[in-house]
Amino acid sequence: MTRALCPGSFDPPTNGHIDVIERCARQFDEVVVGVIENPSKKTLFTLDERTDMLKDILAHLDNVEVASFEGLLVDFARARGLTIVVKGLRAVSDFEYELQMAQMNSTLLSGLDTMFMTAKPEWAFLSSSLVKEVARFGGPVEGLVSPLVAKALVERHKRAEG
Amino acid sequence: MTRALCPGSFDPPTNGHIDVIERCARQFDEVVVGVIENPSKKTLFTLDERTDMLKDILAHLDNVEVASFEGLLVDFARARGLTIVVKGLRAVSDFEYELQMAQMNSTLLSGLDTMFMTAKPEWAFLSSSLVKEVARFGGPVEGLVSPLVAKALVERHKRAEG
Amino acid sequence: MTRALCPGSFDPPTNGHIDVIERCARQFDEVVVGVIENPSKKTLFTLDERTDMLKDILAHLDNVEVASFEGLLVDFARARGLTIVVKGLRAVSDFEYELQMAQMNSTLLSGLDTMFMTAKPEWAFLSSSLVKEVARFGGPVEGLVSPLVAKALVERHKRAEG
Amino acid sequence: MTRALCPGSFDPPTNGHIDVIERCARQFDEVVVGVIENPSKKTLFTLDERTDMLKDILAHLDNVEVASFEGLLVDFARARGLTIVVKGLRAVSDFEYELQMAQMNSTLLSGLDTMFMTAKPEWAFLSSSLVKEVARFGGPVEGLVSPLVAKALVERHKRAEG
Amino acid sequence: MTRALCPGSFDPPTNGHIDVIERCARQFDEVVVGVIENPSKKTLFTLDERTDMLKDILAHLDNVEVASFEGLLVDFARARGLTIVVKGLRAVSDFEYELQMAQMNSTLLSGLDTMFMTAKPEWAFLSSSLVKEVARFGGPVEGLVSPLVAKALVERHKRAEG
Amino acid sequence: MTRALCPGSFDPPTNGHIDVIERCARQFDEVVVGVIENPSKKTLFTLDERTDMLKDILAHLDNVEVASFEGLLVDFARARGLTIVVKGLRAVSDFEYELQMAQMNSTLLSGLDTMFMTAKPEWAFLSSSLVKEVARFGGPVEGLVSPLVAKALVERHKRAEG
Repeated sequence: MTRALCPGSFDPPTNGHIDVIERCARQFDEVVVGVIENPSKKTLFTLDERTDMLKDILAHLDNVEVASFEGLLVDFARARGLTIVVKGLRAVSDFEYELQMAQMNSTLLSGLDTMFMTAKPEWAFLSSSLVKEVARFGGPVEGLVSPLVAKALVERHKRAEG
Repeated sequence: MTRALCPGSFDPPTNGHIDVIERCARQFDEVVVGVIENPSKKTLFTLDERTDMLKDILAHLDNVEVASFEGLLVDFARARGLTIVVKGLRAVSDFEYELQMAQMNSTLLSGLDTMFMTAKPEWAFLSSSLVKEVARFGGPVEGLVSPLVAKALVERHKRAEG
Repeated sequence: MTRALCPGSFDPPTNGHIDVIERCARQFDEVVVGVIENPSKKTLFTLDERTDMLKDILAHLDNVEVASFEGLLVDFARARGLTIVVKGLRAVSDFEYELQMAQMNSTLLSGLDTMFMTAKPEWAFLSSSLVKEVARFGGPVEGLVSPLVAKALVERHKRAEG
Repeated sequence: MTRALCPGSFDPPTNGHIDVIERCARQFDEVVVGVIENPSKKTLFTLDERTDMLKDILAHLDNVEVASFEGLLVDFARARGLTIVVKGLRAVSDFEYELQMAQMNSTLLSGLDTMFMTAKPEWAFLSSSLVKEVARFGGPVEGLVSPLVAKALVERHKRAEG
Repeated sequence: MTRALCPGSFDPPTNGHIDVIERCARQFDEVVVGVIENPSKKTLFTLDERTDMLKDILAHLDNVEVASFEGLLVDFARARGLTIVVKGLRAVSDFEYELQMAQMNSTLLSGLDTMFMTAKPEWAFLSSSLVKEVARFGGPVEGLVSPLVAKALVERHKRAEG
Repeated sequence: MTRALCPGSFDPPTNGHIDVIERCARQFDEVVVGVIENPSKKTLFTLDERTDMLKDILAHLDNVEVASFEGLLVDFARARGLTIVVKGLRAVSDFEYELQMAQMNSTLLSGLDTMFMTAKPEWAFLSSSLVKEVARFGGPVEGLVSPLVAKALVERHKRAEG
């Protein structure tokens, strides 16, 4: 049985993230979406909020589980018996950083392989931080994220200003 | 009539920025230099200071207007009826980020096109942040920025230490 | 009046090329599509065939002229009084080569500026050579090129095998 | 059951290729190594030679099959019911070309996903063409390719000169 | 006599840094390792700690001196009469930033040349910040840094938590 | 004594090549310019012509020797006792190829280190093939190559047409 780990901050999840996860769910027997909590990075949404968003958006996929973890990815992978990490790639700069992470992770946990996928071209320009910047200035984010995330972004910024 | 928008933080403007703006002024009927105010980014010079520097440096160009804006570039472009954005490019890493911004902006405002130009090779290594780092340690910045900006950099750092 | 030169081999023109030319036609007063004849490069379609394809596909655009030239781009630009070259960009490797050409051309003809545009993300993976490779093995090219070009590709390969 | 297609020219297979295939064999239920015959590209070894080399080198892996194909990768994948393509990546320039191929293939065959893996860092500088260039001038290729391939390279060049 | 300057933050030094310095020591008559103190960047180890680590690790090399400096690299180079800067490179993104620094430094100090070397492939994925992130979560860093640095990393994090 | 090897095809040498060699001559005790003869690559100028051009252009530098070689760079370096290879870099795509060559050469000859330098920004867009393309169509190459090379290019093309 092949099981893939799709790790990320997902702050918030974009349509690009969801596209990669859905394609993994078609290709692998099981997919674990691993939401990373990194105490040294400030996020717009809490770990619980990000995890809940993903659970809602991915509820239609039977073979996808959403979990969260703090610490090293290799420790989470080892604990769950996962040996495949799947990462979405957009650009060359992504690629170089992800390549360094992949080599490091394979050094820390022998037998752990990272595979890179690309999202559909129409999401190639999407990133969580771009989405947050658009939302912060009241720009439209429908079509870039799922309706649930779009609503959360609007409310978060309303609260910040209200 | 073709009008181009040259947006940027210009903190401070370098000879590379000025080279691109001057070439736009020769090629397009009108050029609007759009100085971006981003409240979440700390700048060395205030919005007014950056705008005034550009007005002084570009005073000899009849078809160039210097304006400032806060918020989304697409909102500023829409309000001013501008459909061409011109961005200077130095390196590959610039290119990837700018490409993502261009795609995002064209999604947010249909009909808005981004065009990339490269500065003269002798400015290819110049960036506002490199200039600020050199100035902070008392290095010479003449030849990298206009005399007016060089003077402002020296005074800013004198004040910080004095 | 702003006039842009869109040069290329167009062997054959793809939907990515057409997207960039159509956007130039909206942004500039006039557009000259310059079909390059390079005797040292073997093409699938003759210079006349490539020029005629573009004339047919772009016939609906009043401000677009299709012309062809042999030799240096700067000589063609000088003869026609064109000072803006617009090139479509797909990837980082494109960017580096085009940047070298842009610098060289600006050295050979002072006042000639090259501007780079990106095609829509859905055409980001398209190139004339990929299209030819797909067609050579009988793969479907509809949706990648205009119907006229698709038909020409099928006939060219039928003739080659027949 | 997850089955992966590892396509390539393998002219000849290097230790970098073998590393990627072996890791796929551990991760997926079945692996099909697809040796590409491209009539328009001249190879040092014939299709049969390349296929036999891979069969010998990979004989110890029960879940790996070596097959060959001519024409479009998507036609081969469709005929064999394969929906995952795995490609090894070395460098940024690889990445861009492979990304274009991946997008094209996913356009030509809906549901076909390409995943990228990186070889171990010690093989990061290896390519079939570099190996051939070293061998052509009598340089040592042991440690870069399997003994069987090293021997074949020496004999091929002896014959060429003899 | 050829003398090379190897500058860096070395927070902490990794096996990749040491590999580059050792190779410089074999190639040049003398090597000055310049530990940079940048007051605006927070480091995990103090300037003295970083300098002492390097002195210990490099004690076996007679022609290597470890020194530290604050301010512009060109001022340090001028004061010490050094005209060659050697920088290790890992990836393309490194390359672009380092190229800008090299051009800037050569503008600020005529006759100063920067040369780039690459570490062994097995260190190609190593960076001080990756090492710190692994150590922060209790991951093993032996084999990535020298024993002395590994011990210092463990103690630093113990203190932070204790 | 530090001796550097500057290898290349130099077909023909450009001002970018000469800039890198002259800077090596200032930094190293001795410089060997190694003109590569690769029988499988067609050149515009013969090995003797390229070697003679370099000897003429570099005659003013006492510590520079121009030599030629066929075969592997590592064999030439070993025969001459050279352990430093210096390569000029222009762009990211250069960098990746050169990095692979550097790793390969260091594998083939332990102790051989490759160092990369960048030419002055004004030569950053220059390559031998661009120069040849300009010359082929009668474009001006003065300022891109030395007068001697410019004259040879004009004569070569006159003969080809005459």
